[in-house]
Amino acid sequence: MEILNDSSPKRSLNNVKVGEDVRIFDFVNAYHCEIGDRSKVGTFVEIQKGATIGKDCKISSHTFICEGVKIGDGVFVGHNVSFINDLYPRAVNADGSMQTDADWHVETTEIGNRVSIGTSATILGGIKIGDNAIIGAGSVVTKDVPANVIVKGNPAKVSRYINE
Amino acid sequence: MEILNDSSPKRSLNNVKVGEDVRIFDFVNAYHCEIGDRSKVGTFVEIQKGATIGKDCKISSHTFICEGVKIGDGVFVGHNVSFINDLYPRAVNADGSMQTDADWHVETTEIGNRVSIGTSATILGGIKIGDNAIIGAGSVVTKDVPANVIVKGNPAKVSRYINE
Amino acid sequence: MEILNDSSPKRSLNNVKVGEDVRIFDFVNAYHCEIGDRSKVGTFVEIQKGATIGKDCKISSHTFICEGVKIGDGVFVGHNVSFINDLYPRAVNADGSMQTDADWHVETTEIGNRVSIGTSATILGGIKIGDNAIIGAGSVVTKDVPANVIVKGNPAKVSRYINE
Repeated sequence: MEILNDSSPKRSLNNVKVGEDVRIFDFVNAYHCEIGDRSKVGTFVEIQKGATIGKDCKISSHTFICEGVKIGDGVFVGHNVSFINDLYPRAVNADGSMQTDADWHVETTEIGNRVSIGTSATILGGIKIGDNAIIGAGSVVTKDVPANVIVKGNPAKVSRYINE
Repeated sequence: MEILNDSSPKRSLNNVKVGEDVRIFDFVNAYHCEIGDRSKVGTFVEIQKGATIGKDCKISSHTFICEGVKIGDGVFVGHNVSFINDLYPRAVNADGSMQTDADWHVETTEIGNRVSIGTSATILGGIKIGDNAIIGAGSVVTKDVPANVIVKGNPAKVSRYINE
Repeated sequence: MEILNDSSPKRSLNNVKVGEDVRIFDFVNAYHCEIGDRSKVGTFVEIQKGATIGKDCKISSHTFICEGVKIGDGVFVGHNVSFINDLYPRAVNADGSMQTDADWHVETTEIGNRVSIGTSATILGGIKIGDNAIIGAGSVVTKDVPANVIVKGNPAKVSRYINE
């Protein structure tokens, strides 16, 4: 893999490890993360340190991928999707001091292969989504999602099973 | 109408057809689309090829307008609104190859005149929204919305009728 | 406090009053607003005129803070959070003319100290959120939230009380 660093006006890429034929569009902020072969990253996307994206993925515009997220191969992530890695985020500690990396535990989120995450979905921290699952647009995913199901709603519930 | 091309640091405008007195703010990505007289486009907005926006519209920040969306005149589109043009988006085909434009059918969405779409609303593909309708903030619109109604919720349901 | 003006490629800061040790990341659009000591503002954030943010706050990426919003000290605002200041936004008046500042009343939103607003939450206009409250990810907040409670859902309802 190749390491990208790009601080030109429309990119803020810092130590981004990319495979072959990766395409990154304008106005992207990504750092210390990994993006597999042929994957595409849309405009206004942020990808944080330690996040990994597999091969043949589409990460659509306005999406936020945080530390602790591991995305499989062939995954579609819609527009305006947000991941979370902290169940009870706070800006400050009980003593009023600002929280730092030392003050929280990063929850890990694992997205299987060929998953499709609909536009505007929100995926809470510590979630596993199984292969081929489809997350409906606007869903708030608060529990693990098994493989081969469609979930939707807030909170997201199983809507039907995929027979393929 | 005039054709805008602008690749200065804060704009990525490629073949954007604009009417008179159109205002486009910073950090906007728009290509092969059309924006009518006096309409305004906020920061962090993406407008895709083939989308059309009427006259006297406000497109607020962080909003995503995709291919297949046709917006009437005098429409308010709130912040962080997302449109969709694909009912079952996938990154890859069954054989594992990445999908291209040839692999999906673009659903068409039509927004009537003087519609108001609240902040953070998500509008699924293939939807028609009638004139004067109001879409509540945070709604997920999964069905057509008639003229002169207010809808809200996930999924959005009719909340009341507008008597004007 | 110091006044920041910065029109370099990755910033659009116009008359931003900041306290000590404020950090503002790339691709931020902020104007005629105030940000207190040690607060951080993430990428792809817009902060409008007249908004005030207290000390020791974290404003995460993709968030929109509008005119009329007053945020206390030690507040965590997640990613992709949107505030609202207009209950019935319209692009045009009844006579078809575009609305201007003179055509609407800005609703005021007040966020107490040490509040935590989860990712993708939407906060309607005219809302008060009490100290220490937690707003769940993906919530749509349509009513005032008392101090020391957790709310979630669309519309957001009290989920439990915080005993600290």
